[in-house]
Amino acid sequence: MISPLGEILEENMEPSGIVTLITDFGLSDPYVGQLKGALLSSWRAVQIVDICHQVQRHGLLEGAYCLATSYHHFPAGTVHLIVVDPGVGTDRAILAAQGDGHLFIAPDNGLLSILLAGHKIQSLHRVGHSQAGVSATFHGRDIMAPLAADLARGRSLKSLGEEYAPADCILLEAGRVEQGEGEVRGAVLRIDSFGNIRTSIRATDLTALRLDLPLEVELSGQRMVMLLSWTYGLLDGGRPGLLWDSDGFLEVAVNQGDAAALLGVEQGAAVVLRQVSIRQ
Amino acid sequence: MISPLGEILEENMEPSGIVTLITDFGLSDPYVGQLKGALLSSWRAVQIVDICHQVQRHGLLEGAYCLATSYHHFPAGTVHLIVVDPGVGTDRAILAAQGDGHLFIAPDNGLLSILLAGHKIQSLHRVGHSQAGVSATFHGRDIMAPLAADLARGRSLKSLGEEYAPADCILLEAGRVEQGEGEVRGAVLRIDSFGNIRTSIRATDLTALRLDLPLEVELSGQRMVMLLSWTYGLLDGGRPGLLWDSDGFLEVAVNQGDAAALLGVEQGAAVVLRQVSIRQ
Amino acid sequence: MISPLGEILEENMEPSGIVTLITDFGLSDPYVGQLKGALLSSWRAVQIVDICHQVQRHGLLEGAYCLATSYHHFPAGTVHLIVVDPGVGTDRAILAAQGDGHLFIAPDNGLLSILLAGHKIQSLHRVGHSQAGVSATFHGRDIMAPLAADLARGRSLKSLGEEYAPADCILLEAGRVEQGEGEVRGAVLRIDSFGNIRTSIRATDLTALRLDLPLEVELSGQRMVMLLSWTYGLLDGGRPGLLWDSDGFLEVAVNQGDAAALLGVEQGAAVVLRQVSIRQ
Repeated sequence: MISPLGEILEENMEPSGIVTLITDFGLSDPYVGQLKGALLSSWRAVQIVDICHQVQRHGLLEGAYCLATSYHHFPAGTVHLIVVDPGVGTDRAILAAQGDGHLFIAPDNGLLSILLAGHKIQSLHRVGHSQAGVSATFHGRDIMAPLAADLARGRSLKSLGEEYAPADCILLEAGRVEQGEGEVRGAVLRIDSFGNIRTSIRATDLTALRLDLPLEVELSGQRMVMLLSWTYGLLDGGRPGLLWDSDGFLEVAVNQGDAAALLGVEQGAAVVLRQVSIRQ
Repeated sequence: MISPLGEILEENMEPSGIVTLITDFGLSDPYVGQLKGALLSSWRAVQIVDICHQVQRHGLLEGAYCLATSYHHFPAGTVHLIVVDPGVGTDRAILAAQGDGHLFIAPDNGLLSILLAGHKIQSLHRVGHSQAGVSATFHGRDIMAPLAADLARGRSLKSLGEEYAPADCILLEAGRVEQGEGEVRGAVLRIDSFGNIRTSIRATDLTALRLDLPLEVELSGQRMVMLLSWTYGLLDGGRPGLLWDSDGFLEVAVNQGDAAALLGVEQGAAVVLRQVSIRQ
Repeated sequence: MISPLGEILEENMEPSGIVTLITDFGLSDPYVGQLKGALLSSWRAVQIVDICHQVQRHGLLEGAYCLATSYHHFPAGTVHLIVVDPGVGTDRAILAAQGDGHLFIAPDNGLLSILLAGHKIQSLHRVGHSQAGVSATFHGRDIMAPLAADLARGRSLKSLGEEYAPADCILLEAGRVEQGEGEVRGAVLRIDSFGNIRTSIRATDLTALRLDLPLEVELSGQRMVMLLSWTYGLLDGGRPGLLWDSDGFLEVAVNQGDAAALLGVEQGAAVVLRQVSIRQ
């Protein structure tokens, strides 16, 4: 996965000067602000953009999903700093990665899983750092933010530390899609704040099913027949239906309603799709 | 309302390079971040400022109020992007407007109501857009953000699409102020997070009442006598009173307390003001 | 405390162009956005960074703590604007201060307490302002934001108003640390959103205790024996322990758990530390 091509891309990548942030810090503490202070103290000209700070506490799958669905909307050469870090202060590695035209800094705890599974990572390094002046509880601010600022101003990935094998990275199991006999099995990656149920299933996973006919959707033990709609406004009033969400994943939604509450579905739940059998 | 003067103003308006955001996306999903990515990908030098992302879900009146009370605090030539869009993916129009020295992008669903009613809009266009590469569920990110970035860097309004008549715009009915016999009737536009009750009534609506004498305020079926105070600190401890809020609307507040909770008032409630009758 | 040295430092301080914000406005209203508009209208090139807008309503101690633990992470010459202002519109003073390489604007209501107690403030002025065009309820936007923008672009502190004696400032009593016989008494300054219990006790307060031996911690009437750990990951599973938090204060935490909920501790609670007596 780490190819000479990756090295060449890296050499030629011009940084955008932007650092995006994904954390589970929430917004009621000053931690996000302190991390931004550390970024600006490292490089006064860095441009900081929040993606999300309300990832569920220690929610690694949610953080990974947030990153995988968001990074590519930013200009090439952007640095994405993801700090969901229950292992802070232990010997878990800190990773710096490059791929798909972007740069990433994250603890090695599964946050890069979806990118790694999708073969988006071309170069991966384990960050060396001294312990001088570093708190044991806030590596996001004291170690990762200065590194992100350095990458944003053009420091090379390889200067940060030794190369690291993707095979040595921690990967999250949840959300893998499997093909069964006449069915496709995935999982609920995320309930968004509108109550939309975002699954791990993509269009390429559904080639064995006919999407213009009704589908049976099994979710949290319930079986329902749904149609695939083009947009929320076309869903039958009050009834759940299927859509492609804005990131290309299959979503269960209710027009102007809260599908997750209606169906009692939670993050991580299994989802199975089957063609509805029609007697002839 | 669309006058030659409006055209001239538009031609001469220098963009500030700022795009402000008002949405109902909330802050627990990555949607706001993705929209910012789309803005920066369209124009790297755009400056993005959040006004509010916690407009009540599909809260059109609240979005309209947020916009009307906020836009004029920004430098002239600022683009205001408002995405509260329950009709996303249907054939509702997307509007680009100019007025009072500012630019606006919003779906045609009432979000511009207060500006239109106040004759602040001088030029109005319906945006044409292709469907290529566009999700059906996130037009804010995929259509409106690139347009906002274009306007912010100086693209002309009229190049975005055909002219549109204000009379064809969807207007929200709520919040209209009416003069009755010895009374003024309005509505509660918003309960803010301090519990202050913000009404649709302005000073110019109260010319028939004496504001230096006690007023009877009817709210959610309760009648109370209140005085108009200069500031929160001067309100009687624990008792609700009247103030001009920081946007020029009449507000019912309790000093260091939550007026809405105390009085059981909700957004949209009717409010009636009368002079207290004093027997002589 | 206001020395000739202070004056000299002030004269030589180069502004960073950054204004940080700490408020109790919350994020569901457009007030933070309006304040940013006022900053940008005062000085188009100002760079605005949020530290926290979810300080508890009228939470002066929390605001003071937020400021004291955050300002020094920013580049020298940054202006910090703190608006927790229950006395808005009354005759409470508005202060502009300089110290430790930073600038501060806040109402005189205790928000600068921790900085003043730590002898960080070198120059202090009471701001003069006209009432023209000023709302009586939103001085943060209408008075303090323009002043912060002025300081950020290099206006001198002394030009803002008359000198003010630190002794005349309102100070908050809470959080003072006292040495008793074989014990140290402090208070809970803050419960963060992870449930970590942040106390007012620093390392320099604990010179009379041996930190490599177990300590008795009295919190909300409960006495528990705890060990000081290097980081969260090293705490015994599920049991509360002591750490130095990322700001140098003593913290009670549970690894991947919510210490405050577990122990039923609230902000402001007393905390007492004693050496555990070991019979020999």
